[in-house]
Amino acid sequence: MENEEKQQYEEHLESMRHSASHVLAHAVLKLYPDAKLGIGPAIENGFYYDFEFSEPIEEGDLKKIEKEMKKIIKRGLPITQVSMNRKDAIEYYKKTEQTYKLELMEDIEGDELSFYITGENEFADLCRGPHVSTTKDIGAIKLTKTAGAYWRGDETKKMLTRIYGTAFDTENELNTFLKNQEELENRNHRKIGKQLELFAIITEIGQGLPVWLPRGYTMRRILEDYVIRLERDYGYLHILTPHINREVLFETSGHLGFYKDSMYPPMVVDDEVYYLKPMNCPAGMMVYNLEPKSYRDLPYKLGEFGTVYRYEKSGELQGLQRVRGFTQNDAHIFCTPEQLEASIHEVLDMFHIFYKDVGFLKYKFRLSLSDKEANPKKYAGDPERWKIAEETLRKVLTDREAEFEEMPGDAAFYGPKIDVQAVNVFGKEDSVSTVQLDFNLPQRFNIKYIDDAGVEQEPFVIHRAIIGSFERFFAFLIETHGGDFPLWFTPEQVYVIPISDKHHEYAQSVYEDFKNADLRVKLDARTKSMQSRIRDAEKMKIPYIVVVGDKEIETETISVRSRKNKSEGLMKVQEFIDSLKEEIRTKEPFTPLEEEDSN
Amino acid sequence: MENEEKQQYEEHLESMRHSASHVLAHAVLKLYPDAKLGIGPAIENGFYYDFEFSEPIEEGDLKKIEKEMKKIIKRGLPITQVSMNRKDAIEYYKKTEQTYKLELMEDIEGDELSFYITGENEFADLCRGPHVSTTKDIGAIKLTKTAGAYWRGDETKKMLTRIYGTAFDTENELNTFLKNQEELENRNHRKIGKQLELFAIITEIGQGLPVWLPRGYTMRRILEDYVIRLERDYGYLHILTPHINREVLFETSGHLGFYKDSMYPPMVVDDEVYYLKPMNCPAGMMVYNLEPKSYRDLPYKLGEFGTVYRYEKSGELQGLQRVRGFTQNDAHIFCTPEQLEASIHEVLDMFHIFYKDVGFLKYKFRLSLSDKEANPKKYAGDPERWKIAEETLRKVLTDREAEFEEMPGDAAFYGPKIDVQAVNVFGKEDSVSTVQLDFNLPQRFNIKYIDDAGVEQEPFVIHRAIIGSFERFFAFLIETHGGDFPLWFTPEQVYVIPISDKHHEYAQSVYEDFKNADLRVKLDARTKSMQSRIRDAEKMKIPYIVVVGDKEIETETISVRSRKNKSEGLMKVQEFIDSLKEEIRTKEPFTPLEEEDSN
Repeated sequence: MENEEKQQYEEHLESMRHSASHVLAHAVLKLYPDAKLGIGPAIENGFYYDFEFSEPIEEGDLKKIEKEMKKIIKRGLPITQVSMNRKDAIEYYKKTEQTYKLELMEDIEGDELSFYITGENEFADLCRGPHVSTTKDIGAIKLTKTAGAYWRGDETKKMLTRIYGTAFDTENELNTFLKNQEELENRNHRKIGKQLELFAIITEIGQGLPVWLPRGYTMRRILEDYVIRLERDYGYLHILTPHINREVLFETSGHLGFYKDSMYPPMVVDDEVYYLKPMNCPAGMMVYNLEPKSYRDLPYKLGEFGTVYRYEKSGELQGLQRVRGFTQNDAHIFCTPEQLEASIHEVLDMFHIFYKDVGFLKYKFRLSLSDKEANPKKYAGDPERWKIAEETLRKVLTDREAEFEEMPGDAAFYGPKIDVQAVNVFGKEDSVSTVQLDFNLPQRFNIKYIDDAGVEQEPFVIHRAIIGSFERFFAFLIETHGGDFPLWFTPEQVYVIPISDKHHEYAQSVYEDFKNADLRVKLDARTKSMQSRIRDAEKMKIPYIVVVGDKEIETETISVRSRKNKSEGLMKVQEFIDSLKEEIRTKEPFTPLEEEDSN
Repeated sequence: MENEEKQQYEEHLESMRHSASHVLAHAVLKLYPDAKLGIGPAIENGFYYDFEFSEPIEEGDLKKIEKEMKKIIKRGLPITQVSMNRKDAIEYYKKTEQTYKLELMEDIEGDELSFYITGENEFADLCRGPHVSTTKDIGAIKLTKTAGAYWRGDETKKMLTRIYGTAFDTENELNTFLKNQEELENRNHRKIGKQLELFAIITEIGQGLPVWLPRGYTMRRILEDYVIRLERDYGYLHILTPHINREVLFETSGHLGFYKDSMYPPMVVDDEVYYLKPMNCPAGMMVYNLEPKSYRDLPYKLGEFGTVYRYEKSGELQGLQRVRGFTQNDAHIFCTPEQLEASIHEVLDMFHIFYKDVGFLKYKFRLSLSDKEANPKKYAGDPERWKIAEETLRKVLTDREAEFEEMPGDAAFYGPKIDVQAVNVFGKEDSVSTVQLDFNLPQRFNIKYIDDAGVEQEPFVIHRAIIGSFERFFAFLIETHGGDFPLWFTPEQVYVIPISDKHHEYAQSVYEDFKNADLRVKLDARTKSMQSRIRDAEKMKIPYIVVVGDKEIETETISVRSRKNKSEGLMKVQEFIDSLKEEIRTKEPFTPLEEEDSN
């Protein structure tokens, strides 16, 4: 869809959903005449309306209300805007029980109030619109759930009942949406993270401080190794700096001035003040400065898997998505002005390789620029360099024919940047990678190099993270793949299951073959039924299950079940190992079949 | 040498060195009659004497003093003990300028003072001995350096001049020692760490908080990968827990009670108190408890590369040897009583493999036991379990025919342990690995498993670290190898050096061959002379230098220089790669030749 068309469609959906919320209130008043109305807006993916019921309603009542809504929709009642004198409206409402509406009207300034009327005065609601013109335009609706909500979000006020719903043009669209929602719920990284034993949040250890469990750590280590290798191929060097740094470092960097609220409180040791580092940059700058650099050393690319700690409100913490301690696949690139364009291209090349290999098939760019005209004082550093940087970032994206959105005013005070949003199968987006210019730290840390004329110069400094946070990246990785990870980084690749005790020895030898081939394999010879062991393996989303019994021993083969095609039939061990090695080499993603073969 | 013989030898050395310090003072008084004497003991590896000189002396004056000492030694003067009445001695010394000696005498209790006289009253010194019987017994001496030393170690008192020396029975022994000392100095990990760019201590980041530079991090990562693989082969699982933990965890573990002085100060966030973790154990216990365990899950082996922070006095910090933040190759093993012996054996097997592979050719065991008879209240946990544990540890060491020393009273309050001391080529020892029982944490964290009768039991909990601290281990690794690391974990394995510009293209293709073979290789095509680039590579202790010029291009070969034999002659690239792969596979250590071939 073109952008304009898309925007029109979204505006249409919003009007329709807003009208659906009116129909919801209309239906509720028909069924519960003494219900009091709160507010009822359209929201992302649907709408809601808040009510005060005299008797609590239950999830089961939604069916009845939905039925009533559908009747109203079917009647094709016109929805029309009328304007009323404020005073008259207030006088009128004072005679009704709609005290919440009355409160809203009293808060609105101006003499005229806008109302929308459904049918011939069947239902009226204080509302600025817009709406569709008749209830028939509402299409397919579904009420999804109820929840408690304080009037005006104020916990000292009355708790109302919020009814959520959604609406689409067609039943088809509605059903696809509902199915996706269910699938999204099934793919929730906290749910899958627990089921696959990838990570845990342990209250006694701390909120927002995830613990990597063995299966999650295995994946993380594989991805770390992969990234280190990728970066080495591009000439990166890697360092490791401590998690606490002295105060003087953050004074120099300026973080204590503008970032202190996100930092953990200081620790005083022997009259020296230390902070948990919220960023890896200051220590990275110190390492650059250990030895004087010449233009021959540039571009100098210094990477670190740096674990940083940043304060987040406890209410905002969420699984791996929003945490207080996380590891960045961080790097700083120091380059000459001539190397800037190629350096940005190279970073985007690396992003592309990485995204392909981890199975992020769709992603978008966001170019955050300054708004120097409006806020000239907001930005640090030389305006001429800003101009070069912004133009270079735009040129690189344009030359690559990348789809990107420009966000003037979204640049950091220290420089413009490109963020990369990965998009998962359901359209959910998440910021994974970033490449940013920095015109602040080089000056604060006196970052220099000697050019080919022997003159001291300030290099361009690029911050770059392929994986901005391993934790958030894993949330997205889990949800994108629904736990069915590509073979190359899945924690366990093969389970070997002997049908009974007498097949144990053969199973053991097959297991050893896999182990010697450097595959991540587990032998499950527990005294449970084969079927139940297969179910356990499936629950853990193991890509391949190898079953061995009399037939396999006799023919010196193995029976292979894959998550993709279920039975792959009898194979020689070596033949199977070779096929796995190939799947690992090509980093092929797992794509579930729409219709599963029965077998 | 047998232990008893060794002890006799050491006592002899001590007497001789003590006598040498008397001869030093004797010689100084001959040359500088107004010098005042402080004290002059034998110390490890030699002796010293403190003097107050009226004019400062220089390092160059040591030759002259040494010459004078040798004269005294040659004369074979008897060294005899005499006893003097305290009062008489003080009266006598009051008439001399030896005010420091007078002060010492006044502090000694008792009526009789012991003096040693050299020759016929040529030199006398307040001293309890013992000494050799004549100066001729002193053998070979050497004065090594001077240093300032406050009288009685008190910085409010006068700074004296300390002259250090050493003495051995023969010139040969002395020369070997001096050569070793020089070599030790050359191998100092701080010196080599800087030269090879392995790590840095950066004041602004913090004392005792080493930064791993790219070459050091490369080594560390290789060793981490190696250990993970070794541990996986033994069925270990790996986790990663945050660097800060909530206070409640350390209350439960008891660390806040007995370890608080070594912990960093608390950080309060949203009314919750956090500490930098000084140990990985508490979080490890929480992970064990995430799922109930049965005897079928045991032994359960949970490893972590855990970075911990512990307070050390700033005066005690030293390079990588003594730091405030370090990473442990930590693990906890949870096992049944029946599995205890096999579990300890397995840990010692792993130590053995590890030590061999990193080139620690000599190591010793120290078995730390309780002294329950003397201090029955000192120890936590069930005495019966203590007995089993201590007997098992001793039995394992005995069954392995390991050389070990028993240290009653050296056990921790929570359990007995075996420490492993690696010994480097010069006899310097360092504690690298440990295996400890813990009878405290299981009770505090309610660590349980269900046995085969369905009854809840407490497992044995073993703490175990192959690399107790990566930082300290690296100090020892650097000093043991003098920077000439085995090929498999040396940061850069090969440098490719084209003789001149016109050989660059061929050098590049050779470099790509190495890179594709997964070797750590660098192409040095700088516009410096070939000789100077070779010297640079040698300075960085690169194991193999590959030089290419006309001859190599013509014959499609490379010229290889190894650190071992220097010229290895012309080779085919593939032949050389194969030999490197074999050297990496066998983890062969580098052993420098006694006499280098000239070439």
